[in-house]
Amino acid sequence: MASNPIGIIDSGVGGLTVVKEMMRQLPNESIIYMGDTARCPYGPRTSEEIKQFTWEMAHYLEKFNIKMLIIACNTATAVALEEIRESLSIPVLGVINPGARAAITVSDKYKIGVIGTEMTIRSKAYENALKMINDEVNVYGLACPKLVPLVESGVIHGDLAEKIVAKSLYPLQTKNIDTLILGCTHYPILQPVIESYFNHKVKVISSGEETAREASAILDHSHMLNKNKHEAPEYKFFTTGSKTIFQSIAKQWLQLEELEVETVKLSKIEYI
Amino acid sequence: MASNPIGIIDSGVGGLTVVKEMMRQLPNESIIYMGDTARCPYGPRTSEEIKQFTWEMAHYLEKFNIKMLIIACNTATAVALEEIRESLSIPVLGVINPGARAAITVSDKYKIGVIGTEMTIRSKAYENALKMINDEVNVYGLACPKLVPLVESGVIHGDLAEKIVAKSLYPLQTKNIDTLILGCTHYPILQPVIESYFNHKVKVISSGEETAREASAILDHSHMLNKNKHEAPEYKFFTTGSKTIFQSIAKQWLQLEELEVETVKLSKIEYI
Repeated sequence: MASNPIGIIDSGVGGLTVVKEMMRQLPNESIIYMGDTARCPYGPRTSEEIKQFTWEMAHYLEKFNIKMLIIACNTATAVALEEIRESLSIPVLGVINPGARAAITVSDKYKIGVIGTEMTIRSKAYENALKMINDEVNVYGLACPKLVPLVESGVIHGDLAEKIVAKSLYPLQTKNIDTLILGCTHYPILQPVIESYFNHKVKVISSGEETAREASAILDHSHMLNKNKHEAPEYKFFTTGSKTIFQSIAKQWLQLEELEVETVKLSKIEYI
Repeated sequence: MASNPIGIIDSGVGGLTVVKEMMRQLPNESIIYMGDTARCPYGPRTSEEIKQFTWEMAHYLEKFNIKMLIIACNTATAVALEEIRESLSIPVLGVINPGARAAITVSDKYKIGVIGTEMTIRSKAYENALKMINDEVNVYGLACPKLVPLVESGVIHGDLAEKIVAKSLYPLQTKNIDTLILGCTHYPILQPVIESYFNHKVKVISSGEETAREASAILDHSHMLNKNKHEAPEYKFFTTGSKTIFQSIAKQWLQLEELEVETVKLSKIEYI
Protein backbone atom coordinates (compact mmCIF):
# COMPACT_ATOMS: atom_id res chain seq x y z
CA MET A 1 0.00 0.00 0.00
CA ALA A 2 2.70 2.50 1.02
CA SER A 3 4.47 2.01 -2.31
CA ASN A 4 1.30 2.63 -4.36
CA PRO A 5 1.29 5.84 -6.40
CA ILE A 6 -0.46 9.12 -5.63
CA GLY A 7 -2.99 10.17 -8.25
CA ILE A 8 -3.22 13.81 -9.33
CA ILE A 9 -5.89 15.08 -11.71
CA ASP A 10 -6.34 18.45 -13.36
CA SER A 11 -8.16 20.13 -16.22
CA GLY A 12 -4.83 20.50 -18.04
CA VAL A 13 -1.25 21.41 -17.24
CA GLY A 14 -1.88 23.76 -14.28
CA GLY A 15 -1.76 20.87 -11.80
CA LEU A 16 1.87 20.32 -12.71
CA THR A 17 2.64 23.05 -10.14
CA VAL A 18 1.26 20.62 -7.55
CA VAL A 19 3.32 17.76 -9.02
CA LYS A 20 6.47 19.86 -8.83
CA GLU A 21 5.91 20.60 -5.16
CA MET A 22 4.99 16.95 -4.45
CA MET A 23 8.24 15.77 -6.05
CA ARG A 24 10.13 18.19 -3.84
CA GLN A 25 8.35 17.34 -0.59
CA LEU A 26 7.82 13.64 -1.19
CA PRO A 27 10.75 12.53 -3.34
CA ASN A 28 10.08 8.83 -2.63
CA GLU A 29 6.49 8.83 -3.86
CA SER A 30 5.38 7.62 -7.28
CA ILE A 31 2.89 9.90 -9.04
CA ILE A 32 0.32 9.32 -11.76
CA TYR A 33 -0.99 12.49 -13.34
CA MET A 34 -3.94 13.00 -15.61
CA GLY A 35 -4.52 16.33 -17.38
CA ASP A 36 -7.75 16.79 -19.32
CA THR A 37 -6.06 19.14 -21.78
CA ALA A 38 -8.54 18.38 -24.57
CA ARG A 39 -11.44 19.82 -22.56
CA CYS A 40 -9.50 22.57 -20.72
CA PRO A 41 -10.38 25.13 -19.40
CA TYR A 42 -13.07 23.95 -16.98
CA GLY A 43 -13.70 27.52 -15.73
CA PRO A 44 -16.53 28.45 -18.11
CA ARG A 45 -18.23 25.00 -18.08
CA THR A 46 -21.38 23.91 -16.24
CA SER A 47 -21.18 22.15 -12.86
CA GLU A 48 -22.59 18.98 -14.40
CA GLU A 49 -19.88 18.85 -17.05
CA ILE A 50 -17.13 19.54 -14.53
CA LYS A 51 -18.38 16.77 -12.22
CA GLN A 52 -18.62 14.36 -15.14
CA PHE A 53 -15.08 15.09 -16.36
CA THR A 54 -13.58 14.95 -12.86
CA TRP A 55 -15.21 11.57 -12.18
CA GLU A 56 -13.91 10.23 -15.49
CA MET A 57 -10.36 11.12 -14.50
CA ALA A 58 -10.75 9.76 -10.97
CA HIS A 59 -12.04 6.43 -12.30
CA TYR A 60 -9.21 6.21 -14.78
CA LEU A 61 -6.58 6.61 -12.07
CA GLU A 62 -8.35 4.25 -9.65
CA LYS A 63 -7.24 1.40 -11.91
CA PHE A 64 -3.64 2.06 -10.84
CA ASN A 65 -4.42 1.40 -7.14
CA ILE A 66 -3.61 4.94 -6.13
CA LYS A 67 -3.34 5.44 -2.36
CA MET A 68 -4.46 9.07 -2.46
CA LEU A 69 -6.20 11.31 -4.98
CA ILE A 70 -5.45 15.02 -5.33
CA ILE A 71 -7.83 17.18 -7.33
CA ALA A 72 -5.26 19.76 -8.40
CA CYS A 73 -7.74 21.99 -10.18
CA ASN A 74 -9.54 24.68 -8.20
CA THR A 75 -12.62 24.62 -10.41
CA ALA A 76 -12.98 20.84 -10.11
CA THR A 77 -12.35 21.05 -6.35
CA ALA A 78 -15.05 23.69 -5.94
CA VAL A 79 -17.60 21.57 -7.81
CA ALA A 80 -16.73 17.89 -7.32
CA LEU A 81 -14.50 17.37 -4.26
CA GLU A 82 -17.15 16.59 -1.65
CA GLU A 83 -18.92 14.05 -3.83
CA ILE A 84 -15.74 12.22 -4.83
CA ARG A 85 -14.37 12.26 -1.29
CA GLU A 86 -17.52 10.63 0.03
CA SER A 87 -17.45 7.90 -2.62
CA LEU A 88 -13.83 6.79 -2.55
CA SER A 89 -12.20 4.91 0.30
CA ILE A 90 -8.76 6.58 -0.14
CA PRO A 91 -7.99 10.11 1.10
CA VAL A 92 -9.12 12.69 -1.48
CA LEU A 93 -7.65 16.19 -1.28
CA GLY A 94 -8.64 19.35 -3.10
CA VAL A 95 -6.63 22.54 -3.38
CA ILE A 96 -9.09 24.94 -1.74
CA ASN A 97 -8.99 24.09 1.97
CA PRO A 98 -5.17 23.95 2.11
CA GLY A 99 -5.00 27.37 0.43
CA ALA A 100 -7.59 28.78 2.83
CA ARG A 101 -5.79 27.38 5.90
CA ALA A 102 -2.48 28.83 4.75
CA ALA A 103 -4.06 32.24 4.16
CA ILE A 104 -5.55 32.29 7.68
CA THR A 105 -2.10 31.42 9.07
CA VAL A 106 -0.22 34.26 7.38
CA SER A 107 -2.86 37.00 7.28
CA ASP A 108 -2.56 39.65 9.97
CA LYS A 109 -5.51 41.84 9.06
CA TYR A 110 -7.81 39.08 7.80
CA LYS A 111 -8.33 40.97 4.53
CA ILE A 112 -7.81 38.24 1.99
CA GLY A 113 -8.08 38.43 -1.80
CA VAL A 114 -8.79 35.36 -3.93
CA ILE A 115 -8.25 35.20 -7.68
CA GLY A 116 -9.44 32.32 -9.84
CA THR A 117 -11.57 31.29 -12.79
CA GLU A 118 -15.14 32.51 -13.10
CA MET A 119 -16.54 29.21 -11.83
CA THR A 120 -14.20 29.09 -8.81
CA ILE A 121 -15.05 32.65 -7.80
CA ARG A 122 -18.77 32.23 -8.52
CA SER A 123 -18.87 29.06 -6.38
CA LYS A 124 -17.62 31.08 -3.38
CA ALA A 125 -15.68 27.95 -2.41
CA TYR A 126 -12.74 29.89 -0.96
CA GLU A 127 -15.01 32.33 0.80
CA ASN A 128 -16.90 29.44 2.42
CA ALA A 129 -13.68 27.64 3.37
CA LEU A 130 -12.21 30.80 4.91
CA LYS A 131 -15.40 31.70 6.79
CA MET A 132 -15.71 28.12 8.02
CA ILE A 133 -12.38 28.64 9.76
CA ASN A 134 -12.99 32.18 10.94
CA ASP A 135 -16.10 34.13 10.13
CA GLU A 136 -14.50 37.49 10.86
CA VAL A 137 -12.36 37.28 7.76
CA ASN A 138 -13.00 39.69 4.86
CA VAL A 139 -12.77 37.97 1.50
CA TYR A 140 -12.50 39.71 -1.86
CA GLY A 141 -13.00 37.28 -4.76
CA LEU A 142 -12.03 38.30 -8.26
CA ALA A 143 -12.35 36.28 -11.47
CA CYS A 144 -9.33 36.74 -13.74
CA PRO A 145 -10.30 34.94 -16.96
CA LYS A 146 -7.37 36.44 -18.92
CA LEU A 147 -4.61 34.84 -16.84
CA VAL A 148 -4.98 31.18 -17.85
CA PRO A 149 -4.71 31.97 -21.60
CA LEU A 150 -1.69 34.15 -20.79
CA VAL A 151 0.09 31.25 -19.08
CA GLU A 152 -0.99 28.70 -21.67
CA SER A 153 0.46 30.93 -24.40
CA GLY A 154 3.76 31.18 -22.54
CA VAL A 155 3.58 34.93 -21.87
CA ILE A 156 4.72 34.79 -18.26
CA HIS A 157 6.90 37.91 -17.87
CA GLY A 158 7.66 41.16 -19.65
CA ASP A 159 5.51 44.16 -20.57
CA LEU A 160 2.46 42.33 -21.89
CA ALA A 161 2.25 40.00 -18.89
CA GLU A 162 2.62 42.95 -16.50
CA LYS A 163 -0.05 44.91 -18.32
CA ILE A 164 -2.61 42.10 -18.32
CA VAL A 165 -1.89 41.21 -14.67
CA ALA A 166 -2.26 44.89 -13.69
CA LYS A 167 -5.55 45.20 -15.56
CA SER A 168 -6.87 41.94 -14.07
CA LEU A 169 -5.90 42.72 -10.48
CA TYR A 170 -6.85 46.41 -10.53
CA PRO A 171 -10.19 45.90 -8.67
CA LEU A 172 -8.22 44.59 -5.65
CA GLN A 173 -6.04 47.71 -5.48
CA THR A 174 -8.42 49.59 -3.16
CA LYS A 175 -9.31 46.65 -0.93
CA ASN A 176 -6.24 46.94 1.25
CA ILE A 177 -5.69 43.16 1.29
CA ASP A 178 -2.67 41.75 3.10
CA THR A 179 -2.89 38.24 1.62
CA LEU A 180 -3.75 36.94 -1.85
CA ILE A 181 -4.70 33.35 -2.64
CA LEU A 182 -3.76 32.15 -6.11
CA GLY A 183 -6.96 30.16 -6.56
CA CYS A 184 -5.97 28.56 -9.86
CA THR A 185 -3.02 26.23 -10.36
CA HIS A 186 -1.92 28.15 -13.45
CA TYR A 187 -1.27 31.33 -11.52
CA PRO A 188 1.92 30.41 -9.60
CA ILE A 189 3.70 30.71 -12.97
CA LEU A 190 2.80 34.42 -12.85
CA GLN A 191 3.66 34.79 -9.16
CA PRO A 192 6.68 37.10 -9.66
CA VAL A 193 4.59 39.46 -11.82
CA ILE A 194 1.72 39.37 -9.33
CA GLU A 195 4.00 40.00 -6.35
CA SER A 196 5.64 42.98 -7.98
CA TYR A 197 2.22 44.41 -8.97
CA PHE A 198 1.55 44.66 -5.21
CA ASN A 199 5.08 45.98 -4.55
CA HIS A 200 5.80 42.80 -2.56
CA LYS A 201 3.51 44.08 0.19
CA VAL A 202 0.92 41.33 -0.11
CA LYS A 203 1.58 37.74 0.99
CA VAL A 204 0.89 35.46 -1.94
CA ILE A 205 -0.35 31.91 -1.26
CA SER A 206 0.01 29.18 -3.85
CA SER A 207 -2.74 26.67 -3.12
CA GLY A 208 -0.87 23.93 -4.97
CA GLU A 209 2.19 24.25 -2.76
CA GLU A 210 0.04 24.14 0.36
CA THR A 211 -1.81 21.07 -0.90
CA ALA A 212 1.45 19.19 -1.35
CA ARG A 213 2.28 19.95 2.29
CA GLU A 214 -1.06 18.70 3.55
CA ALA A 215 -0.78 15.58 1.40
CA SER A 216 2.52 14.91 3.06
CA ALA A 217 1.07 15.42 6.56
CA ILE A 218 -1.93 13.19 5.89
CA LEU A 219 0.16 10.37 4.41
CA ASP A 220 2.46 10.60 7.41
CA HIS A 221 -0.42 10.42 9.89
CA SER A 222 -2.06 7.54 8.05
CA HIS A 223 1.25 5.63 8.01
CA MET A 224 1.09 5.65 4.21
CA LEU A 225 4.39 7.37 3.36
CA ASN A 226 6.68 5.32 1.17
CA LYS A 227 9.77 4.90 3.29
CA ASN A 228 11.58 2.63 0.86
CA LYS A 229 14.36 4.80 -0.50
CA HIS A 230 16.05 2.12 -2.54
CA GLU A 231 13.52 2.04 -5.31
CA ALA A 232 13.29 5.12 -7.53
CA PRO A 233 9.77 6.58 -7.71
CA GLU A 234 7.85 6.31 -10.98
CA TYR A 235 6.18 9.23 -12.69
CA LYS A 236 3.54 8.62 -15.32
CA PHE A 237 1.54 11.27 -17.16
CA PHE A 238 -1.68 10.98 -19.09
CA THR A 239 -3.30 13.67 -21.20
CA THR A 240 -6.50 13.74 -23.19
CA GLY A 241 -4.86 16.10 -25.69
CA SER A 242 -1.60 16.39 -27.58
CA LYS A 243 1.18 14.26 -26.14
CA THR A 244 3.89 16.44 -27.70
CA ILE A 245 2.61 19.73 -26.30
CA PHE A 246 2.00 18.22 -22.86
CA GLN A 247 5.44 16.68 -22.83
CA SER A 248 7.20 19.89 -23.77
CA ILE A 249 5.36 21.95 -21.12
CA ALA A 250 5.80 19.31 -18.42
CA LYS A 251 9.51 18.83 -19.09
CA GLN A 252 10.05 22.57 -18.79
CA TRP A 253 7.99 23.01 -15.60
CA LEU A 254 9.28 19.93 -13.84
CA GLN A 255 12.82 20.32 -15.14
CA LEU A 256 12.95 16.70 -16.20
CA GLU A 257 14.85 15.42 -19.19
CA GLU A 258 12.72 12.40 -19.80
CA LEU A 259 9.00 12.08 -19.22
CA GLU A 260 6.55 9.28 -19.99
CA VAL A 261 3.35 10.73 -21.47
CA GLU A 262 0.45 8.86 -23.00
CA THR A 263 -2.65 10.23 -24.70
CA VAL A 264 -5.88 8.57 -23.58
CA LYS A 265 -9.52 8.92 -24.42
CA LEU A 266 -11.84 9.20 -21.43
CA SER A 267 -15.21 7.60 -21.87
CA LYS A 268 -18.45 8.99 -20.60
CA ILE A 269 -19.35 7.30 -17.33
CA GLU A 270 -22.23 7.42 -14.92
CA TYR A 271 -20.81 9.51 -12.15
CA ILE A 272 -23.51 8.60 -9.57
CA MET B 1 -16.91 13.45 19.17
CA ALA B 2 -16.46 16.56 17.00
CA SER B 3 -17.22 18.80 19.98
CA ASN B 4 -14.66 17.09 22.25
CA PRO B 5 -11.65 19.21 23.19
CA ILE B 6 -8.15 19.08 21.76
CA GLY B 7 -5.46 18.27 24.34
CA ILE B 8 -2.14 20.12 24.27
CA ILE B 9 0.75 19.24 26.56
CA ASP B 10 4.07 20.96 27.15
CA SER B 11 6.90 21.10 29.62
CA GLY B 12 5.78 24.59 30.66
CA VAL B 13 4.44 27.74 29.03
CA GLY B 14 6.21 27.42 25.64
CA GLY B 15 3.34 25.42 24.17
CA LEU B 16 1.10 28.45 24.59
CA THR B 17 2.50 29.59 21.22
CA VAL B 18 0.78 26.51 19.77
CA VAL B 19 -2.42 27.31 21.68
CA LYS B 20 -2.42 30.86 20.32
CA GLU B 21 -2.13 29.64 16.75
CA MET B 22 -4.77 26.94 17.35
CA MET B 23 -7.21 29.56 18.65
CA ARG B 24 -6.61 31.59 15.51
CA GLN B 25 -6.91 28.74 13.04
CA LEU B 26 -9.58 26.74 14.82
CA PRO B 27 -11.71 29.29 16.66
CA ASN B 28 -14.53 26.76 17.25
CA GLU B 29 -12.39 24.17 19.01
CA SER B 30 -12.21 23.71 22.78
CA ILE B 31 -8.71 23.26 24.16
CA ILE B 32 -7.33 21.68 27.32
CA TYR B 33 -3.73 22.57 28.06
CA MET B 34 -1.33 21.05 30.53
CA GLY B 35 2.03 22.68 31.27
CA ASP B 36 4.46 20.81 33.50
CA THR B 37 5.93 24.05 34.80
CA ALA B 38 7.11 22.49 38.06
CA ARG B 39 9.49 20.16 36.23
CA CYS B 40 10.43 22.49 33.33
CA PRO B 41 12.78 22.59 31.44
CA TYR B 42 12.83 19.07 29.99
CA GLY B 43 15.90 19.85 27.83
CA PRO B 44 18.60 18.68 30.26
CA ARG B 45 16.65 15.61 31.59
CA THR B 46 17.11 11.94 30.71
CA SER B 47 14.98 10.26 28.05
CA GLU B 48 13.37 8.07 30.68
CA GLU B 49 12.27 11.04 32.75
CA ILE B 50 10.93 12.87 29.73
CA LYS B 51 8.92 9.83 28.62
CA GLN B 52 7.55 9.39 32.12
CA PHE B 53 6.47 13.04 32.45
CA THR B 54 4.95 13.15 28.98
CA TRP B 55 2.93 10.00 29.63
CA GLU B 56 1.67 11.44 32.93
CA MET B 57 0.34 14.50 31.15
CA ALA B 58 -1.17 12.46 28.31
CA HIS B 59 -3.01 10.23 30.78
CA TYR B 60 -4.28 13.22 32.71
CA LEU B 61 -5.82 14.77 29.59
CA GLU B 62 -7.24 11.47 28.34
CA LYS B 63 -9.81 11.70 31.14
CA PHE B 64 -11.37 14.68 29.34
CA ASN B 65 -12.13 12.62 26.21
CA ILE B 66 -9.81 14.65 24.03
CA LYS B 67 -10.20 13.96 20.32
CA MET B 68 -6.58 14.79 19.47
CA LEU B 69 -3.36 15.17 21.46
CA ILE B 70 -0.64 17.64 20.53
CA ILE B 71 2.76 17.29 22.15
CA ALA B 72 3.70 20.96 21.93
CA CYS B 73 7.18 20.49 23.33
CA ASN B 74 10.04 19.69 20.96
CA THR B 75 12.01 17.77 23.56
CA ALA B 76 9.02 15.59 24.49
CA THR B 77 8.20 15.08 20.81
CA ALA B 78 11.76 13.97 20.07
CA VAL B 79 11.70 11.43 22.89
CA ALA B 80 8.11 10.25 23.40
CA LEU B 81 5.96 10.94 20.31
CA GLU B 82 6.27 7.59 18.56
CA GLU B 83 5.52 5.59 21.66
CA ILE B 84 2.47 7.65 22.63
CA ARG B 85 1.15 7.73 19.07
CA GLU B 86 1.27 3.97 18.88
CA SER B 87 -0.56 3.52 22.16
CA LEU B 88 -3.45 5.97 21.84
CA SER B 89 -6.37 5.57 19.47
CA ILE B 90 -6.75 9.33 18.80
CA PRO B 91 -4.45 11.28 16.43
CA VAL B 92 -1.28 12.34 18.25
CA LEU B 93 0.81 15.15 16.75
CA GLY B 94 4.25 16.37 17.64
CA VAL B 95 5.87 19.63 16.59
CA ILE B 96 8.88 18.23 14.76
CA ASN B 97 7.48 16.78 11.53
CA PRO B 98 5.30 19.83 10.79
CA GLY B 99 8.33 22.10 11.28
CA ALA B 100 10.46 19.90 9.04
CA ARG B 101 7.84 19.80 6.30
CA ALA B 102 7.44 23.58 6.37
CA ALA B 103 11.21 24.06 6.15
CA ILE B 104 11.45 21.80 3.09
CA THR B 105 8.65 23.82 1.46
CA VAL B 106 10.26 27.22 1.87
CA SER B 107 13.96 26.37 1.59
CA ASP B 108 15.53 27.08 -1.80
CA LYS B 109 19.07 25.94 -1.13
CA TYR B 110 18.24 23.11 1.30
CA LYS B 111 20.63 24.55 3.87
CA ILE B 112 18.55 24.45 7.00
CA GLY B 113 19.49 25.46 10.53
CA VAL B 114 17.71 24.06 13.58
CA ILE B 115 17.93 25.56 17.05
CA GLY B 116 16.57 23.87 20.15
CA THR B 117 17.36 22.51 23.59
CA GLU B 118 20.33 20.22 24.10
CA MET B 119 18.15 17.12 24.15
CA THR B 120 16.27 18.08 20.97
CA ILE B 121 19.49 18.76 19.08
CA ARG B 122 21.26 15.70 20.49
CA SER B 123 18.32 13.47 19.49
CA LYS B 124 18.80 14.55 15.83
CA ALA B 125 15.00 14.38 15.57
CA TYR B 126 14.80 17.30 13.12
CA GLU B 127 17.72 16.04 11.12
CA ASN B 128 16.07 12.63 10.79
CA ALA B 129 12.69 14.14 9.91
CA LEU B 130 14.26 16.41 7.26
CA LYS B 131 16.38 13.63 5.77
CA MET B 132 13.40 11.29 5.73
CA ILE B 133 11.72 13.78 3.39
CA ASN B 134 14.78 14.60 1.33
CA ASP B 135 18.20 13.19 2.01
CA GLU B 136 19.98 15.90 0.03
CA VAL B 137 19.20 18.51 2.65
CA ASN B 138 22.03 19.97 4.74
CA VAL B 139 21.06 20.37 8.37
CA TYR B 140 22.94 22.43 10.96
CA GLY B 141 21.70 21.75 14.47
CA LEU B 142 22.61 24.09 17.30
CA ALA B 143 21.67 23.83 20.98
CA CYS B 144 20.83 27.23 22.47
CA PRO B 145 20.41 26.55 26.20
CA LYS B 146 20.40 30.27 27.07
CA LEU B 147 17.27 31.17 25.14
CA VAL B 148 14.61 29.44 27.27
CA PRO B 149 15.75 31.16 30.50
CA LEU B 150 15.79 34.45 28.57
CA VAL B 151 12.15 34.04 27.55
CA GLU B 152 11.07 32.70 30.94
CA SER B 153 12.58 35.79 32.56
CA GLY B 154 10.70 38.06 30.19
CA VAL B 155 13.77 39.50 28.45
CA ILE B 156 12.42 39.31 24.92
CA HIS B 157 13.77 42.46 23.26
CA GLY B 158 16.36 45.16 23.82
CA ASP B 159 20.14 45.09 24.12
CA LEU B 160 20.50 42.09 26.42
CA ALA B 161 18.18 39.90 24.35
CA GLU B 162 20.00 40.90 21.15
CA LYS B 163 23.37 40.16 22.71
CA ILE B 164 22.43 36.71 23.99
CA VAL B 165 20.67 35.78 20.73
CA ALA B 166 23.74 36.91 18.75
CA LYS B 167 26.09 34.92 20.95
CA SER B 168 23.85 31.83 20.78
CA LEU B 169 23.37 31.92 17.01
CA TYR B 170 26.92 32.89 16.10
CA PRO B 171 27.98 29.34 15.06
CA LEU B 172 25.32 29.43 12.31
CA GLN B 173 26.70 32.66 10.82
CA THR B 174 29.14 30.90 8.47
CA LYS B 175 26.80 28.07 7.43
CA ASN B 176 25.02 30.11 4.78
CA ILE B 177 21.60 28.76 5.81
CA ASP B 178 18.50 30.05 4.01
CA THR B 179 15.97 28.63 6.52
CA LEU B 180 15.96 28.35 10.31
CA ILE B 181 13.64 26.11 12.30
CA LEU B 182 12.74 27.36 15.76
CA GLY B 183 12.88 23.90 17.33
CA CYS B 184 11.59 24.98 20.73
CA THR B 185 8.18 26.45 21.40
CA HIS B 186 9.70 29.21 23.54
CA TYR B 187 11.66 30.67 20.65
CA PRO B 188 8.85 32.29 18.60
CA ILE B 189 8.72 34.91 21.37
CA LEU B 190 12.24 35.90 20.29
CA GLN B 191 11.45 35.67 16.57
CA PRO B 192 11.83 39.42 15.82
CA VAL B 193 15.27 39.47 17.49
CA ILE B 194 16.32 36.29 15.66
CA GLU B 195 15.11 37.57 12.29
CA SER B 196 16.97 40.82 12.66
CA TYR B 197 20.14 38.99 13.71
CA PHE B 198 20.07 37.42 10.23
CA ASN B 199 19.17 40.78 8.60
CA HIS B 200 15.81 39.25 7.59
CA LYS B 201 17.61 37.12 5.00
CA VAL B 202 16.80 33.77 6.56
CA LYS B 203 13.28 32.30 6.51
CA VAL B 204 12.27 31.52 10.06
CA ILE B 205 9.88 28.61 10.70
CA SER B 206 7.88 28.40 13.90
CA SER B 207 7.16 24.71 14.45
CA GLY B 208 4.20 25.53 16.68
CA GLU B 209 2.45 27.54 14.00
CA GLU B 210 2.98 24.77 11.48
CA THR B 211 1.65 22.17 13.90
CA ALA B 212 -1.57 24.12 14.34
CA ARG B 213 -2.01 24.07 10.56
CA GLU B 214 -1.47 20.34 10.33
CA ALA B 215 -3.83 19.74 13.24
CA SER B 216 -6.44 21.66 11.34
CA ALA B 217 -5.84 19.64 8.15
CA ILE B 218 -5.96 16.31 9.97
CA LEU B 219 -9.16 17.15 11.86
CA ASP B 220 -10.72 18.26 8.59
CA HIS B 221 -9.75 15.05 6.80
CA SER B 222 -10.94 12.88 9.69
CA HIS B 223 -14.28 14.75 9.74
CA MET B 224 -13.54 15.76 13.32
CA LEU B 225 -13.71 19.55 13.04
CA ASN B 226 -16.26 21.14 15.33
CA LYS B 227 -18.64 22.86 12.95
CA ASN B 228 -21.05 24.02 15.63
CA LYS B 229 -20.51 27.76 15.76
CA HIS B 230 -23.29 28.49 18.21
CA GLU B 231 -21.53 27.21 21.27
CA ALA B 232 -18.48 29.15 22.44
CA PRO B 233 -15.35 27.00 22.75
CA GLU B 234 -13.99 26.27 26.23
CA TYR B 235 -10.38 26.75 27.24
CA LYS B 236 -9.01 25.08 30.33
CA PHE B 237 -5.44 25.24 31.59
CA PHE B 238 -3.61 23.01 34.03
CA THR B 239 -0.17 23.59 35.46
CA THR B 240 1.95 21.56 37.85
CA GLY B 241 3.45 24.80 39.18
CA SER B 242 2.27 28.20 40.32
CA LYS B 243 -1.23 29.05 39.17
CA THR B 244 -0.63 32.79 39.50
CA ILE B 245 2.53 32.88 37.41
CA PHE B 246 1.03 30.62 34.75
CA GLN B 247 -2.10 32.73 34.61
CA SER B 248 -0.23 35.98 34.21
CA ILE B 249 2.01 34.64 31.41
CA ALA B 250 -0.87 32.92 29.61
CA LYS B 251 -3.14 35.98 29.76
CA GLN B 252 -0.40 38.10 28.25
CA TRP B 253 0.54 35.65 25.47
CA LEU B 254 -3.00 34.72 24.53
CA GLN B 255 -4.37 38.23 25.02
CA LEU B 256 -7.24 36.95 27.11
CA GLU B 257 -8.82 38.81 29.98
CA GLU B 258 -10.06 35.79 31.84
CA LEU B 259 -8.42 32.41 32.02
CA GLU B 260 -9.28 29.29 34.01
CA VAL B 261 -6.12 27.78 35.49
CA GLU B 262 -5.85 24.95 37.99
CA THR B 263 -2.76 23.55 39.67
CA VAL B 264 -2.60 19.75 39.67
CA LYS B 265 -0.22 17.16 40.97
CA LEU B 266 0.75 14.46 38.49
CA SER B 267 1.30 11.06 39.94
CA LYS B 268 3.97 8.65 38.89
CA ILE B 269 2.51 6.11 36.49
CA GLU B 270 3.68 3.11 34.59
CA TYR B 271 4.20 4.60 31.19
CA ILE B 272 3.89 1.50 29.06
